[in-house]
Amino acid sequence: MSRTVYVNGEYLPEEDAKISIFDRSFLMADGVYEVTSVLDGKLIDFEGHRVRLERSLNELDMQKPEAFDDLLDIHRELVRVNDITDGLVYLQVSRGSAGDRDFAYPSEDVKPTLVLFTQNKPGLADSPAAKTGIKVISIEDQRWGRRDIKTVQLLYPSMGKMMAKAAGCDDAWMVEDGHVTEGTSNNAYIVKGNTIITRQLSNDILHGITRAAVLRFAEEAQMQVEERLFTIDEAKQADEAFVTSASTFVMPVVELDGETIGAGTPGSVATRLREIYLEESRKAAV
Amino acid sequence: MSRTVYVNGEYLPEEDAKISIFDRSFLMADGVYEVTSVLDGKLIDFEGHRVRLERSLNELDMQKPEAFDDLLDIHRELVRVNDITDGLVYLQVSRGSAGDRDFAYPSEDVKPTLVLFTQNKPGLADSPAAKTGIKVISIEDQRWGRRDIKTVQLLYPSMGKMMAKAAGCDDAWMVEDGHVTEGTSNNAYIVKGNTIITRQLSNDILHGITRAAVLRFAEEAQMQVEERLFTIDEAKQADEAFVTSASTFVMPVVELDGETIGAGTPGSVATRLREIYLEESRKAAV
Repeated sequence: MSRTVYVNGEYLPEEDAKISIFDRSFLMADGVYEVTSVLDGKLIDFEGHRVRLERSLNELDMQKPEAFDDLLDIHRELVRVNDITDGLVYLQVSRGSAGDRDFAYPSEDVKPTLVLFTQNKPGLADSPAAKTGIKVISIEDQRWGRRDIKTVQLLYPSMGKMMAKAAGCDDAWMVEDGHVTEGTSNNAYIVKGNTIITRQLSNDILHGITRAAVLRFAEEAQMQVEERLFTIDEAKQADEAFVTSASTFVMPVVELDGETIGAGTPGSVATRLREIYLEESRKAAV
Repeated sequence: MSRTVYVNGEYLPEEDAKISIFDRSFLMADGVYEVTSVLDGKLIDFEGHRVRLERSLNELDMQKPEAFDDLLDIHRELVRVNDITDGLVYLQVSRGSAGDRDFAYPSEDVKPTLVLFTQNKPGLADSPAAKTGIKVISIEDQRWGRRDIKTVQLLYPSMGKMMAKAAGCDDAWMVEDGHVTEGTSNNAYIVKGNTIITRQLSNDILHGITRAAVLRFAEEAQMQVEERLFTIDEAKQADEAFVTSASTFVMPVVELDGETIGAGTPGSVATRLREIYLEESRKAAV
């Protein structure tokens, strides 16, 4: 059955969901996005995504879409009509189309394009990968300098996933000036002893909504958290490694560049954090 | 009157030219482009753009669009039906739409999206800016690491144009590790004595089609060319500065970060190169 998607105020069959070739997200990657998970038919961390979306728009001097205050309703309506129990809601705001191509931003009367669609992922929280852990390779971080803004400039992360796939792995961790920045679509962590280590926030990495929640839960559970730079070598010698993202929650990493991390199975810290995150998020879901 | 544009084999009124919201150029900037100038109804440097497009596609493991061998005909047909004497033809190849969103590239049976449209620019070669020169500011180069591939990841160049505009200027030169890389949509040059200085080719800059032609013409005219790094300070002390691109040809730069370059008017080298480039390009146009 065809999905119902949302484009600029209309609920449409996905086959009819089209945008102008002059849309600035198509022509010059001038757009931002968010992905919100759905568990048991409810939205996980919706407010965090809404706040980050607003920040991305502000950083790029992009207008809020007219329906900004209705985003929760639109998310819920898409979940309802598409009968999503577990899955994702993808949202994109593009600077819109002025009917032609120009590097300069269009005038204020050109309204942003707002697109949302769902992805049905039955059993999203019971991913088999979470039980075995994933394998990652390291690649150079070739992305632009403002990774704190969640733009659709995702070509390099996409290339990174393909490099991982070619190497028989699941994902890639990106390295800049000798230090890990993050995964292609997730934040990266290592664990040494009782300490969780993850790169501090800056323009170099995405300010993960799941990252913020997981670090909060970790501190509430009396785990030590160090936000600092770390290298691939340090990661290889860690007791555990994991990644967090809105769609994978907390995902253990058991191999890095062909070397086993810890026991080669999901570690106790990652496993515990995943449990806590899922439990708390389900409670707070809207 | 509405333009006729080209989308995947069809010639359409521009209002009807739409692509799926699942197109990878829209969702993840997974597309490449070319812009070819039209003078006197003929295409300038078409073959150079065709070859570079093929290179961009290869570098990204992207399939050639089915109509790749017909690109010259499509360009000419768009110029004809839109009655373009002077202007541009914009071309974009996207990796296409698999009907959903995924970082991994779709399978081979998902065909690329091919879009072309014209822009009418009467008197393109007689731009008033070429007679006065343009003013540029310098900004940090925050783009990704593969600027040799002509992708649609143009958000930062777009932001740069807006920064220039806010400063009362026309464009921005980007600086990385203390050296000028290029302009937001053009290659950058300075002139000292009889020597033209421009950054050497690498992954750090676009391999300009106009750049290649201009350097060839410069050498044929017995001018000295040095392909090397240069700084903003060196540029400020140069006798002349200019940029080249497919749509501005050779454009003199007369001010950099508020400081006058040379006499503050278009220099003789830039003026001469512009004349030669236009004359030779018109002769070779197809």
